[in-house]
Amino acid sequence: MSHILILPGDGIGPEIVQEAVRVLRAAEQRFGLDISLDEAPVGGAAYDLHGDPLPESTLDKARAADAILFGSIGGPKWDTIERDKRPERGLLRLRSSLGLFANLRPAILFPQLADASSLKPEVVSGLDILIVRELTGGIYFGQPRGIREENGERVGFNTDVYSESEMRRIAKVAFELAGQRNNKVCSVDKANVLEVTELWKEVVTDAAKDYPNIELSHMYVDNAAMQLVRAPKQFDVIVTGNLFGDILSDEAAMLTGSIGMLPSASLDENRKGLYEPCHGSAPDIAGQGIANPLATIMSLAMLMRYSLERGDVADAIQAAVEQVLDQGLRTADIYTEGTRKVSTEEMGAAVAEAL
Amino acid sequence: MSHILILPGDGIGPEIVQEAVRVLRAAEQRFGLDISLDEAPVGGAAYDLHGDPLPESTLDKARAADAILFGSIGGPKWDTIERDKRPERGLLRLRSSLGLFANLRPAILFPQLADASSLKPEVVSGLDILIVRELTGGIYFGQPRGIREENGERVGFNTDVYSESEMRRIAKVAFELAGQRNNKVCSVDKANVLEVTELWKEVVTDAAKDYPNIELSHMYVDNAAMQLVRAPKQFDVIVTGNLFGDILSDEAAMLTGSIGMLPSASLDENRKGLYEPCHGSAPDIAGQGIANPLATIMSLAMLMRYSLERGDVADAIQAAVEQVLDQGLRTADIYTEGTRKVSTEEMGAAVAEAL
Ligand SMILES: CC(C)[C@H](C(=O)O)[C@@H](O)C(=O)O
Ligand SMILES: CC(C)[C@H](C(=O)O)[C@@H](O)C(=O)O
Repeated sequence: MSHILILPGDGIGPEIVQEAVRVLRAAEQRFGLDISLDEAPVGGAAYDLHGDPLPESTLDKARAADAILFGSIGGPKWDTIERDKRPERGLLRLRSSLGLFANLRPAILFPQLADASSLKPEVVSGLDILIVRELTGGIYFGQPRGIREENGERVGFNTDVYSESEMRRIAKVAFELAGQRNNKVCSVDKANVLEVTELWKEVVTDAAKDYPNIELSHMYVDNAAMQLVRAPKQFDVIVTGNLFGDILSDEAAMLTGSIGMLPSASLDENRKGLYEPCHGSAPDIAGQGIANPLATIMSLAMLMRYSLERGDVADAIQAAVEQVLDQGLRTADIYTEGTRKVSTEEMGAAVAEAL
Repeated sequence: MSHILILPGDGIGPEIVQEAVRVLRAAEQRFGLDISLDEAPVGGAAYDLHGDPLPESTLDKARAADAILFGSIGGPKWDTIERDKRPERGLLRLRSSLGLFANLRPAILFPQLADASSLKPEVVSGLDILIVRELTGGIYFGQPRGIREENGERVGFNTDVYSESEMRRIAKVAFELAGQRNNKVCSVDKANVLEVTELWKEVVTDAAKDYPNIELSHMYVDNAAMQLVRAPKQFDVIVTGNLFGDILSDEAAMLTGSIGMLPSASLDENRKGLYEPCHGSAPDIAGQGIANPLATIMSLAMLMRYSLERGDVADAIQAAVEQVLDQGLRTADIYTEGTRKVSTEEMGAAVAEAL
């Protein structure tokens, strides 16, 4: 029996997670899976209930689970509360407490949605990049940090810090994954300016020695931001630190034009993972039943593949998504003339049906 | 009399700077300017001569000048020398020693070159963004920094740090410049994670009170990286720190598809400045006479506008560039069928002629 914890979160989180659960139920039936589901509050919803965006009880359940399906968190309602209680901090603490150091963010162009991209079709058609972002280190968690008084004024400071072992373990994940793809890894740094990334470059280069079939290249982050716009198909796997990964993965996702389609996985050493859509909580459309549940459904597919080691189920879910896209079903965010606009629930039901 | 220091640097630097000087000579004649020119080595070229990418004599000349026209630096030849002697370090020391805290990077789409963009024409036509990047603070210069031993392994670390006054003075530059454009400033931070940018957001918001006509918005850096791809024309002026500015300005530049066209200015408190093309030293094509000198020529235009307060000369140089583009002249990097491919020198001569 596999234990999956559902963390719906805020904004559109509950709606989209509900559709992913519908698809999960359909997958259970079809493949005779043995899954127990539990649910817990996180983010602003948890703050409202317990005064904490990651209550102890939620963290305990997360530790006990084999995998976590996460909706989204945050919203204007919690933007002005005490810093440590904000929804984002709950997510950051969850990543850190569970040791979810490997963040996998695919940027894939769905041929059915090629028009949605702001890039020329020839630049992005067939795009399939995987960004491997380190998720529990770097400037996100580095100490010291804060705001201090100095010479009569305030000074803000944060520390970007990585140890060799942290760098090596994320590099290995990237090399392993590239081995299942096109054997190319581009490591992104700013080694010409920052010592922490100078060491990064050195360690990644050294780690590559165990992967003779992988072609490793290095790129400065400013150049990578350019190359993603100029010729994104030159990339297979990109590996980088927490902050650069945050920026580049969002840029890469937007190349596809349909961020409502993109899933992500955050894995620990044992491939236990948290799975969430790349998009945010979209408070402006929450509760209207028009959000796109496909990124969350694709996140469920990643969950099946990585944490439950059921690549067959993952493939079936992906095929079901492709099928409803082929049928012309579209939520509002990906709607174009000539297709059929459906609600969050209709989309979820259609994928479950296709499965 | 105005004193301009020429720093040709490495790679294609000397070739492109030579053409900018040709245009400067033509401008001198036409407008009866009184300019004295001097030249000094910088970057790898200076390292080869003096063992230092920024020799004391070069720095002295830079301090004495009213404005500096800079080519480009770096190349594989110097990639493996001692860290402190690398060409980039010379440029960073120059920026810091002269207090060039305000880096202005326009991303403008030339209608003649619209095809060069990898984005759809409707997304980028008429694009005109100005990125204002803080250039002498943040993680580029923050202490402590380095690589230390800890628990038997190496740990790399850097410090992102900004004081209120540093933040306020760059915000003011952005507001002033926006006032001469479309009165919109978007400040980019990662205030949901980094304390240093939380303070940034607060200080920029406060500084905006003196500019009631400016519409200020805030955006997280990951979202900004996305929005630049999705709908870049939503931006007028973007203001941000050193590292985010490095990344976003290169991304924005690439939206135009012709980075060989984009100039930049780095200004101190008194509008003394260093002017350089956005592109790098392109060692692969150095010495072939095929590099595009237009970004350097446009940098000369910025020099006229900001440091010499000769907006009229700047306008004339820009008009001359537009004219040669209209005539169909193109260097190899912007060549398309139906236009005329010219050398670096032919391009420079044509602009000088048009002037
Ligand atoms: C919400 C925020 C803290 C988070 C991050 O920066 O990691 C988000 O942008 C992401 O990429 O998952
Ligand atoms: C060469 C390098 C140090 C420099 C920087 O990062 O500032 C460059 O990328 C730039 O943007 O001018």
